Amino acid sequence: MSKKLTTREDNYSNWYNELVGKADLAEHSEVRGCMVIKPHGFAIWEKMQRSLDDMFKETGHVNAYFPIFIPKSYFSKEASHVEGFAKECAVVTHYRLKTDPETGEVVVDETAKLEEELIVRPTSETIIWNTYKGWIQSYRDLPILVNQWANVVRWEMRTRLFLRTAEFLWQEGHTAHATKQEAISEAEQMLDVYATFAEEWMAMPVIKGVKTESERFAGALDTYCIEALMQDGKALQAGTSHFLGQNFAKAFDVKYVNKEGKEEYVWATSWGVSTRLIGGLIMTHSDDNGLVLPPKLAPIQVAIVPIYRSMEQLEQLQDKLKPLVAELKKRKISVVFDDDDNRKPGWKFAEYEMKGVPIRLAMGPRDLENNTIELARRDTLEKTNVSFENVADTVEGLLETIQSDMLAKARAYRDSNMHNADTWEEFTDIIANKGGFVSAHWDGTSETEEQIKQKTKATIRCIPLENKKESGKCILTGNPSEQRVLFAKAY
Amino acid sequence: MSKKLTTREDNYSNWYNELVGKADLAEHSEVRGCMVIKPHGFAIWEKMQRSLDDMFKETGHVNAYFPIFIPKSYFSKEASHVEGFAKECAVVTHYRLKTDPETGEVVVDETAKLEEELIVRPTSETIIWNTYKGWIQSYRDLPILVNQWANVVRWEMRTRLFLRTAEFLWQEGHTAHATKQEAISEAEQMLDVYATFAEEWMAMPVIKGVKTESERFAGALDTYCIEALMQDGKALQAGTSHFLGQNFAKAFDVKYVNKEGKEEYVWATSWGVSTRLIGGLIMTHSDDNGLVLPPKLAPIQVAIVPIYRSMEQLEQLQDKLKPLVAELKKRKISVVFDDDDNRKPGWKFAEYEMKGVPIRLAMGPRDLENNTIELARRDTLEKTNVSFENVADTVEGLLETIQSDMLAKARAYRDSNMHNADTWEEFTDIIANKGGFVSAHWDGTSETEEQIKQKTKATIRCIPLENKKESGKCILTGNPSEQRVLFAKAY
Ligand SMILES: [Zn+2]
Ligand SMILES: [Zn+2]
Repeated sequence: MSKKLTTREDNYSNWYNELVGKADLAEHSEVRGCMVIKPHGFAIWEKMQRSLDDMFKETGHVNAYFPIFIPKSYFSKEASHVEGFAKECAVVTHYRLKTDPETGEVVVDETAKLEEELIVRPTSETIIWNTYKGWIQSYRDLPILVNQWANVVRWEMRTRLFLRTAEFLWQEGHTAHATKQEAISEAEQMLDVYATFAEEWMAMPVIKGVKTESERFAGALDTYCIEALMQDGKALQAGTSHFLGQNFAKAFDVKYVNKEGKEEYVWATSWGVSTRLIGGLIMTHSDDNGLVLPPKLAPIQVAIVPIYRSMEQLEQLQDKLKPLVAELKKRKISVVFDDDDNRKPGWKFAEYEMKGVPIRLAMGPRDLENNTIELARRDTLEKTNVSFENVADTVEGLLETIQSDMLAKARAYRDSNMHNADTWEEFTDIIANKGGFVSAHWDGTSETEEQIKQKTKATIRCIPLENKKESGKCILTGNPSEQRVLFAKAY
Repeated sequence: MSKKLTTREDNYSNWYNELVGKADLAEHSEVRGCMVIKPHGFAIWEKMQRSLDDMFKETGHVNAYFPIFIPKSYFSKEASHVEGFAKECAVVTHYRLKTDPETGEVVVDETAKLEEELIVRPTSETIIWNTYKGWIQSYRDLPILVNQWANVVRWEMRTRLFLRTAEFLWQEGHTAHATKQEAISEAEQMLDVYATFAEEWMAMPVIKGVKTESERFAGALDTYCIEALMQDGKALQAGTSHFLGQNFAKAFDVKYVNKEGKEEYVWATSWGVSTRLIGGLIMTHSDDNGLVLPPKLAPIQVAIVPIYRSMEQLEQLQDKLKPLVAELKKRKISVVFDDDDNRKPGWKFAEYEMKGVPIRLAMGPRDLENNTIELARRDTLEKTNVSFENVADTVEGLLETIQSDMLAKARAYRDSNMHNADTWEEFTDIIANKGGFVSAHWDGTSETEEQIKQKTKATIRCIPLENKKESGKCILTGNPSEQRVLFAKAY
């Protein structure tokens, strides 16, 4: 199997698909729309999970687990939610198979039909709020700050690995509060957690904003989001945090008695990120040679390859390098010492490059003599010979440098692809020819938003949280506008 | 809500159900057979997951993720597997709902019927081996040592929280090997990992053994298991590890080219433990006051309760106790300082007792004067006043003592409920009146095994791995036998 990728310039979409396969991140299964997350891809997800989970716990959240199945009737209880969610989903109708006595085939046992169909969760607001009803009586029971790590299913006809799949993995936070303001603060706090994670761990700069009404989550009063810019100039919604008001509390009749003894409906938020983040990570940093990973999320941070012709040379290199491996491990750096005799160094170099290992070290007999080692940076592809003395310090420092350089590079790209447009011509020209984010005035109506989408395929990604008020005229209708909003074509 | 439990002597089953509810571990959802794992229960599962996952990785395994849906036809491919697994399961037949224009109700869209039904995974051998076919060509691709943390569904009519639920959480390891011996060693190794985890983390002694043919996993050549004894004298199968031979490789046509260039079928194992372990943990240690947790798996290891009448006293206690909290955290001991003014100390004591917190510390104004602190051990219910000097050392040492005392106590109970029976009368008397494990001769036939089960409800839990050969006569038929096997009534 050739390890050569289509270049990004030739065909970004093919480049992406090939990279996901060749870097051993994921593959399509034979089950329509469902992916297999391969060990290297899953190891990245585990690193993401661990750091997000730590941040959730630091902000007072605990984990729990709710059923994968939701009775069909629950979806009818919150009117706007059913419109948004109850359509394309997996429906369980039977609970038994049997062997057909005539053909010997396995068939559905028609006598085992469920009275009420069960839906494989596309999101869990309904079943969780139905459960919270039993957990909440008084203000003493609030807030509830619960998160769930789970698989969810949304039937999709056109799928792309990580970016859009029928089944995906995610976390969904579901919180219950005594007051409106506390719920809003929670939704804002979790947006900040996501933004911090995106920038500090993924080295992916994001814009924090709020969605327009038409892009809002089904059942939310406000949807906050973080938006990132991919290398092809398209935006990616990387995480959302919803202020749900009292909609679900009213739908599932969840009230609490406040300190004054009065019954009130409970206030809610929900917030989530998914394996889609891995798609964003790939499209923020990777290059024509394969995956590029920020050190903080790299399952392998350093690969060390000995180069030898004889077993004697290998032994000398092992003696020299094993203490370095131990030293790096001691510093909590994840390192692979690859002396597998079945593969040649060139094969190994290409493999670690494809898989995005941030630092590769290689040492041969000449290096042994000179007491040097070859160091290759994955992000810049630079190679240097460095002194073997203090190489652990060099590596540790370089991992930090790579992490911050990657964020700086991604931020510079994003900033240079952030344009203002003041006329419809300018706007359509940028969307069609340059890509990136376009900051422009909009008259605030869903009709105009829809027309712009129809004409250009660009959507309003968000109204940035830190937006300055500025009067202007809508890019399409010329109607008055109070502020610019952020448009882009999006994944 | 009263926190008082039915006693174990009065009704063990009610005691269990009440404890699971009152210790906030889990509850039944409105979805038949599916449980909600509440934060305290889930926190225990997270601790189990973390330590098992570390052990899996130390033994060379990596995690991955496979689809939740399995095409119905896959189950027909391995003949014995379909018999054992394809029957009671959730069947997805449609992929869309719609709003009925007449009634406004949400209904299944009959036009969105799947060509082939999808089964919600009851276990993943079939879909994983169908995937491995694409991953394995040469001996260089072996072994594959993959584990998956996932939810699975087996339709159950009679459910009990943690012990038997339609949906449960588990891990399933699926490994592929070049040789038979390597696969057998892997299955044995993972059994050892489970036994170590049960004893060192859960403080639950187990017997390692192999299942008889009739109790074997569907598709396995050998099923290894660990069996524990609950307080009511019933056994619990706590984990299984299967040597699958080449059954799944043949069913899914998975071959590799060996070093000699010859094609061979791949050898397989699978192994799993589930949230059922939490049921085993409860029934090994807990008492009539609630949950008792071994320190290594306790989400909260130490609870500190200040006892005060005035805000001034509270402040003095906070000044005294906050440095202790910090010191315990520094030692990686998970500690709660509970100065919640909405609850009284008595309420808090009962709550931490119910939830199984291993050590509770309480300090009042008199203790402040004397420089002492009250220390309560959850496992023995002993209370002592100890010097505040070095209390962190005292606590740290005591956590270790509790962990080993709990294992010793459980082992003593298990050993004293391990009986030999040499006649049918003795056998039935022990099974009916004493419970526990009964070691007895059996003629090796499935017919006899089934008859014993019909007559006594006891099943052969396992043939212990470290069994001495000993000729004797079958307890039921009098036919010759080479060794004793272990009988018990079981969960
Ligand atoms: Zn510009
Ligand atoms: Zn005895």
